[in-house]
Amino acid sequence: MVVYLDHAATTPLHPDARDAWLAAHETIGNASSVHIAGQAARRLLDDARDAIAALLRCEPIEVVFTSGGTEAINLALKGLWFEREDPGAIVLPDGEHHATLDAVQWLSSRWGAPVRRVGLDSLGRIDPDGFADALPGAVLATALLANNEVGTVNDPVALAGAAAAAAVPLHLDAVAALGSVEIDFAGWRGTARTPDGLVAVSVSGHKVGAPVGTGALIVSRHARLTALAHGGAAQRGLRAGTPDVAGAAAFAAALAGAEAVRTEEGRRLTELRHRLAAGITAAVPDARVLGDPSLRLPGNLHVMFPGTVGETMLFLFDTHGVAVSTGSACQAGVTEPSHVVLALGYDDEASRSVLRLTLGRTSTAADVDAFLAVLPDVHARARAARDRRMSAP
Amino acid sequence: MVVYLDHAATTPLHPDARDAWLAAHETIGNASSVHIAGQAARRLLDDARDAIAALLRCEPIEVVFTSGGTEAINLALKGLWFEREDPGAIVLPDGEHHATLDAVQWLSSRWGAPVRRVGLDSLGRIDPDGFADALPGAVLATALLANNEVGTVNDPVALAGAAAAAAVPLHLDAVAALGSVEIDFAGWRGTARTPDGLVAVSVSGHKVGAPVGTGALIVSRHARLTALAHGGAAQRGLRAGTPDVAGAAAFAAALAGAEAVRTEEGRRLTELRHRLAAGITAAVPDARVLGDPSLRLPGNLHVMFPGTVGETMLFLFDTHGVAVSTGSACQAGVTEPSHVVLALGYDDEASRSVLRLTLGRTSTAADVDAFLAVLPDVHARARAARDRRMSAP
Repeated sequence: MVVYLDHAATTPLHPDARDAWLAAHETIGNASSVHIAGQAARRLLDDARDAIAALLRCEPIEVVFTSGGTEAINLALKGLWFEREDPGAIVLPDGEHHATLDAVQWLSSRWGAPVRRVGLDSLGRIDPDGFADALPGAVLATALLANNEVGTVNDPVALAGAAAAAAVPLHLDAVAALGSVEIDFAGWRGTARTPDGLVAVSVSGHKVGAPVGTGALIVSRHARLTALAHGGAAQRGLRAGTPDVAGAAAFAAALAGAEAVRTEEGRRLTELRHRLAAGITAAVPDARVLGDPSLRLPGNLHVMFPGTVGETMLFLFDTHGVAVSTGSACQAGVTEPSHVVLALGYDDEASRSVLRLTLGRTSTAADVDAFLAVLPDVHARARAARDRRMSAP
Repeated sequence: MVVYLDHAATTPLHPDARDAWLAAHETIGNASSVHIAGQAARRLLDDARDAIAALLRCEPIEVVFTSGGTEAINLALKGLWFEREDPGAIVLPDGEHHATLDAVQWLSSRWGAPVRRVGLDSLGRIDPDGFADALPGAVLATALLANNEVGTVNDPVALAGAAAAAAVPLHLDAVAALGSVEIDFAGWRGTARTPDGLVAVSVSGHKVGAPVGTGALIVSRHARLTALAHGGAAQRGLRAGTPDVAGAAAFAAALAGAEAVRTEEGRRLTELRHRLAAGITAAVPDARVLGDPSLRLPGNLHVMFPGTVGETMLFLFDTHGVAVSTGSACQAGVTEPSHVVLALGYDDEASRSVLRLTLGRTSTAADVDAFLAVLPDVHARARAARDRRMSAP
């Protein structure tokens, strides 16, 4: 039995999502077909779209279903950028997810888009003044709502306001935030009928208990985007392909389940996180908790263990049946320092000495205690391994 | 209870696919994570990849999982084209699926790619000589293995051979063919270690009983493609995002189920199709069966009913609880003449007078007979409706 402290990588399928997925398959039909069977599928899809729109405070037509967060992010960035004819500048904070970094890097290297970087403060927050200063004249800006590694939550109202003031289209990556932070697309965007300010928010289903392969880009009806995948007029022409009705129904069910208990669950996870943090500090006095102490994802604890290599600790925990992470699962296996921790101002070595511990729906105090029970042994061995290596000729 | 004669739009979930999907969710973990939970997910993904590679005769590393056929087609076309720096020409047969048409149209209108069209013969086959003649100097060619509307199957060996001889990368759209036509990627491609000839084959899961949202692009290890969605090195860097392990397992199970009975099922569906065609011709003597009579998908019957509008017949059948199609579901609801039937040489009016009847795994003789029982009434009313309109002032 694995003690699973990696809910940010993926979290177990919510029973409501499984039931919705199975129930949707009782309906046969392609939601693009005009016959009764197709229209029954279409109604399921519309119901899912309506539910998600209500939960994220947007209009149903603004929900564009995707195969997940990575596709949503790529659709937002490339879709907004390709709509322009000029290689205009992109505002890119440090510490963004690799889907964002790699998409912007491609727009830069292949199509000549200039990139304006914005730094993070030592708690992992995007510097609001630096962000606002970078906007004038840019054609696109992007920002994480919550950092997927260190868990710091940015201020969406400030970011959206700055983008609106500069008349720059802004994409918010809410993949890590979904289910933990209230999403208020209409409130953050405001009522301006312009194609700029906050225009797109990307979300992923499997972070809240929906199946992997589900997600959406919330796209303002006033925004202009180019599709990533062409092939007909489905979803405003922004996302072609047979609509995944069962996936959408499952996503809506999981999100409804997560949103229904968001406040209590946030409180419960915060308590578990404090228990975890207290235990870690007691066992390893020089351990340092990173990220913003209060403006953060409740289930995310990001810890630096000086004098260790995070990857070593991960493997040692794994031998005890405890699953943890050194950062984004998308980069796991790559033994490079975390670009997020580097952006907080730490050096290479320090940026390799971190663990990301993330709690979720199925997490219990027993999971926390199981981690803490093996921590002294794991930490001592990781320190010793690293000391041996440092003293080797 | 719907009589469902629209299996080409989508076909019911295969029980083996459902079981594989549910079983995969017993494993918690992101297949990109390095801990035990992640590696268990990774093994499921590798098993699915190995099974699909064996069934389609390619190497496991050549299977790039996508969210379906439309994404696979877009990845192939844009991926191959973006890898070039020049706006080189694309060879595009008539009658291709809208995912292909719209992707090529975008490469043409947005990026200046010249398009070389190739005609179809009256049976819906891509003219092999015209195809070969269009290739020299092109940077990309695409072709349907089987036409999704009229069901005609092209010769993959001839198409691949012509592309190899001209040193042009070729993508085959096998979405409609999968499960009905044997896919032999290695055999069709041959052993040349070049980035041209047959380099990519797109397939979709839900056409063979896997969940919607599953699919793959088979990509030769010698081909060079640019990703549609960036974000890390997963799947050779061609397709970022958390791997959909459950979807891949379900796709593999459905495909294995379909391939295990392909020959018998092809025979069974051919017999059902003959029964359907005979009944139609008996009831409506001027009805005309389109497409190639022998080189075709066994479950596809495409019929022209002169003096009717296909859309009207579709709605009349729908009132009897019989689900049929006028063409691609992706274009359903759009009352335009089928671009495929136009490509066979028919005029606008004739191209609106067609029905696509498609049989699948759950189809029975009772379905065929239910269709035939209401055909005389539907046909008479559709003729009368159209005659009234033609005689109106």
